[in-house]
Amino acid sequence: MDRRKFMRGAAVGALGSAGAASLAAPAIAQESPKVRWRCTSSFPKSLDTIYGGAEDVAKYVREATDGAFDIQVYAAGEIVPGLQAADAVSNGTVEMCHTAAYYYVGKDPAWALGGVIPFGLNARGMHAWLYYGGGLDLLNEFYGTQGLHYLPAGNTGAQMGGWFRKEINGLADMEGLQMRIAGLAGRVMEKLGVVPQQIAGGDIYPALERGTIDAAEWIGPYDDESLGFYQVAPYYYYPGWWEGNLSLCCYFNQESWQSLPENYRSLLGTATRAATTEMLAEYDYKNPQALRRLIDAGAQLRAYPQDVMNASFTAAQEVYAEINGENEAFKKIYDSMMQFQSETYLWQQVAEYTYDTFMMIKQREGALAGQQAGGNQ
Amino acid sequence: MDRRKFMRGAAVGALGSAGAASLAAPAIAQESPKVRWRCTSSFPKSLDTIYGGAEDVAKYVREATDGAFDIQVYAAGEIVPGLQAADAVSNGTVEMCHTAAYYYVGKDPAWALGGVIPFGLNARGMHAWLYYGGGLDLLNEFYGTQGLHYLPAGNTGAQMGGWFRKEINGLADMEGLQMRIAGLAGRVMEKLGVVPQQIAGGDIYPALERGTIDAAEWIGPYDDESLGFYQVAPYYYYPGWWEGNLSLCCYFNQESWQSLPENYRSLLGTATRAATTEMLAEYDYKNPQALRRLIDAGAQLRAYPQDVMNASFTAAQEVYAEINGENEAFKKIYDSMMQFQSETYLWQQVAEYTYDTFMMIKQREGALAGQQAGGNQ
Repeated sequence: MDRRKFMRGAAVGALGSAGAASLAAPAIAQESPKVRWRCTSSFPKSLDTIYGGAEDVAKYVREATDGAFDIQVYAAGEIVPGLQAADAVSNGTVEMCHTAAYYYVGKDPAWALGGVIPFGLNARGMHAWLYYGGGLDLLNEFYGTQGLHYLPAGNTGAQMGGWFRKEINGLADMEGLQMRIAGLAGRVMEKLGVVPQQIAGGDIYPALERGTIDAAEWIGPYDDESLGFYQVAPYYYYPGWWEGNLSLCCYFNQESWQSLPENYRSLLGTATRAATTEMLAEYDYKNPQALRRLIDAGAQLRAYPQDVMNASFTAAQEVYAEINGENEAFKKIYDSMMQFQSETYLWQQVAEYTYDTFMMIKQREGALAGQQAGGNQ
Repeated sequence: MDRRKFMRGAAVGALGSAGAASLAAPAIAQESPKVRWRCTSSFPKSLDTIYGGAEDVAKYVREATDGAFDIQVYAAGEIVPGLQAADAVSNGTVEMCHTAAYYYVGKDPAWALGGVIPFGLNARGMHAWLYYGGGLDLLNEFYGTQGLHYLPAGNTGAQMGGWFRKEINGLADMEGLQMRIAGLAGRVMEKLGVVPQQIAGGDIYPALERGTIDAAEWIGPYDDESLGFYQVAPYYYYPGWWEGNLSLCCYFNQESWQSLPENYRSLLGTATRAATTEMLAEYDYKNPQALRRLIDAGAQLRAYPQDVMNASFTAAQEVYAEINGENEAFKKIYDSMMQFQSETYLWQQVAEYTYDTFMMIKQREGALAGQQAGGNQ
């Protein structure tokens, strides 16, 4: 505080003399105009990590500009409901939002491609495709038709496959299940005989408890734990094949975006990339602890049976064939993403996967140094 | 340009009137002083992705401050040799560098922990430990004793295990091999009977060609391809168990770091996080293409035999026991990293690993949409 007061005093003195040198600094100031924006999040504050993605972007921007570019983040429902975040940006109610692109598949399935699609990319693949494989440009071509500019911001990593009241021993057990699962994943599940239900986060627990639904998917251990599903639907399945990653994103109102000076636009590009590193790190730190607590509390960890996985994969291809046949915007982006998918798994299965496999074997043997030290098993 | 000229004109006008409102902007300008720094990279420009990490940080900072904070990046050798980058920062020759922490294990093995150690964390684990598991603070406690402030900046992901003139069919084939491999990995390899050699990048190819050395490790497909190793040592092994990730980093001269206004320090934190997303994405995009080209050109892809992997793991534990017995700084950071390692693999083997495994099976079956479309096999 003292330092700033001193510098303000110095600035006033310099302005008083109005020398050429003193004019150099204000020339910079002109590129740092005071901008105050509102960002509506699709998430409640209680989902602190995913909600935190918007807070991270705002903090990075605010700090870098010494408060000149000030983004205020609002939780779902404070300005508009969570699932209307993108609409509030399109129509100019707010300048930006932080959301999951697949919330808007009701408008057009192509929306989902900026978030994740069933049997899509994992987090590393998604970022490579977005930033180097042409994904970002293709998506902005589409979102531009909605009056929006898109930047990815945060990632959850691969998610869990949801909570079930009863164990699933094979494909036949999926038939007729009422499951809280939305969007394209719901459409795939339907082909397996599942009856997809759209239920808001806060209503899932009572629906599972009463048996109105048989299963529900949410996010991963850390977020799922807080909603207490393990108490009423103890079978916890993996992997969430509809979310091999989830790339959160910011949408910006196009006019608002274009009104920004170039340095602020660049800063938002930097801040959103930084938020991606940060959110993945935060989930990767919190999820193991939460998984341990969930298991201690009685959650029964289960892998989806292979026939369920294979049938889901086949059903997903059918859904994509249907959509591609009638939706050029979807097909153009999907083809690009899928072309890269087979590339990325070609590489990831070599060094990355075999290293992790070896280390996971050592983990199961209890041979890792952290386990030998008795820190955990 | 026109817009800036106009705004400068407006600023001069406002200053002329010297009203209270016009003083608000210069108060911000004081927090954006002109700063011109030099960053020495440990890498040549030809390694464009890893060298690009420093360029990315500089670009993000320069653009966000509209050029006020201007970091000039110099390739290895332009100011100091690549392996002296951290020293040049410590002694104030330059304000910052971009380097790999393990280059300095000769001073103290603890240096390596800011980059990667054999059988250490993978990229996701490293970022979680650094930003949420206390790693960043522990490392800065150590690097602070060297007059440096540390920020991670960029990651290569898991690396390859190097090029061999002859096939390795088991542990016995490692005995007596002359291998270009440095630092802690060299120390581990010694316990397997390998004779580690330190050879600069440009000298590796002729040494392999003449048979002066039998094997050499470098980075991954994209970077390895440019040095042409496949022509003289065609057996290309994975995984590089000494580099389950490589977290590149910036070191800042402590006095330079402390002289920065808070907004610039925050911006560097943001820019380095962003550079991490960017570099991983770039490698993940370029490596599959390079791997494909290498295989087409005759590279023979091979997994390290399990007995080599197991013996290397055991040897690494012996090396750590030796270092921990005599080096408190190393032990303190290592214990924290290893405690988190067993945590992170507990979680990563659930959703992330099983999702990737399923998708890799589909890839091998040729069932991925990108393969069905005939894009590649």
